[in-house]
Amino acid sequence: MKKVPDKTRVKRVPQRGIYNKEDIYKILDKEFVCHIGFIHNDIPVVIPTLYGRKDNDLYIHGSMASRMMKTLNEGVEISVAVTRVNGLILARSGFHHSANYESVVIFGKATLIEGKAENIAALKAVSDHIITGRWEEARGPSDKELKATMVLKLPIEEASAKVRTGGPKDDKADYDLDIWAGVIPFTRTIETPIPDEVLRDGIPVPNSVKNYGQEPSTKK
Amino acid sequence: MKKVPDKTRVKRVPQRGIYNKEDIYKILDKEFVCHIGFIHNDIPVVIPTLYGRKDNDLYIHGSMASRMMKTLNEGVEISVAVTRVNGLILARSGFHHSANYESVVIFGKATLIEGKAENIAALKAVSDHIITGRWEEARGPSDKELKATMVLKLPIEEASAKVRTGGPKDDKADYDLDIWAGVIPFTRTIETPIPDEVLRDGIPVPNSVKNYGQEPSTKK
Repeated sequence: MKKVPDKTRVKRVPQRGIYNKEDIYKILDKEFVCHIGFIHNDIPVVIPTLYGRKDNDLYIHGSMASRMMKTLNEGVEISVAVTRVNGLILARSGFHHSANYESVVIFGKATLIEGKAENIAALKAVSDHIITGRWEEARGPSDKELKATMVLKLPIEEASAKVRTGGPKDDKADYDLDIWAGVIPFTRTIETPIPDEVLRDGIPVPNSVKNYGQEPSTKK
Repeated sequence: MKKVPDKTRVKRVPQRGIYNKEDIYKILDKEFVCHIGFIHNDIPVVIPTLYGRKDNDLYIHGSMASRMMKTLNEGVEISVAVTRVNGLILARSGFHHSANYESVVIFGKATLIEGKAENIAALKAVSDHIITGRWEEARGPSDKELKATMVLKLPIEEASAKVRTGGPKDDKADYDLDIWAGVIPFTRTIETPIPDEVLRDGIPVPNSVKNYGQEPSTKK
């Protein structure tokens, strides 16, 4: 087995650490918002943003005018975290309260996507990740829009996942206490789509929306 | 109106920027997982963790052995982001696709909570934030547990929120297209609590669990 570099190795509760690519992809594919950390004027900055995963790359897009995108484009080291919370763990002791979660942290340097076809392909990767089939339904990017948009690619190389599942783990003596313990599970519910107030008559709900969250590969 | 410092000012789509404390607290109180950014060995690191908000402070707790907690305790600058995603925005153009969200970003230096009573009060603040009433039900912290736990406090001073609500905003010409546009809203559903497999007989579901998510002040 490949040695895990120190930066990437899960430090706290190391038995929860996962370095297998397929497991990392599975978590990345459930979400579409990441938190990017970068250094700007010697200060660490964390910003939430949308992303797409395709093959072994994470794609992040934004405005050419964005401070974050400009900084990331300088080839600086960044850190990206994706987190999904699945429940609260209520233990008998306050100390062992916790949460069930799945998270991925990636380190590396993002590189700018160059070339028109390459930019379109990268934007499609983001769109396909967030909502399958929408790219083909929506009006495609104009040259002006492409010029205003920057897409960056981060290889999923220095990456690790951390997962907690199951119920509470209490100290042995605490199992005798008359205190309820268990899990409050959370799920994300997709509510009925709301058409735009000024949507023209006769436009049906498209397949991308009908199928949203239905495909096992896109369990959002 | 107080001038907003450059670091905190929302740069992209500045009309979405919010600097009002009550609005910032409201967003912080809906969530309990933040992403902390800090610099470790010259590299930006982003880690998800639980937090609690009380008055004008954010409390973060962790193990004394945690690399993050040790680094934060050195009085370094950190950035904390809290994000809630409320929906996907489907515009007629790919370019105007977006998400509805509420996010807060805080900058500052965390300080270590010192003193036994102060540590217990800070841990209670985290517990009360995450699930009201649970502190009183669970077994309180032992001296050993208190010694193993570090609690840090970050003032909510250099803070801003960013919120997007409503439907899609398309280019004028695109409103004539035969393309569906609207919002796919998300909500968090609290599922039926799952008692610990080895829970002793006759222990009823406590009030903290029964009331979870019911109080308007704790809309988790």
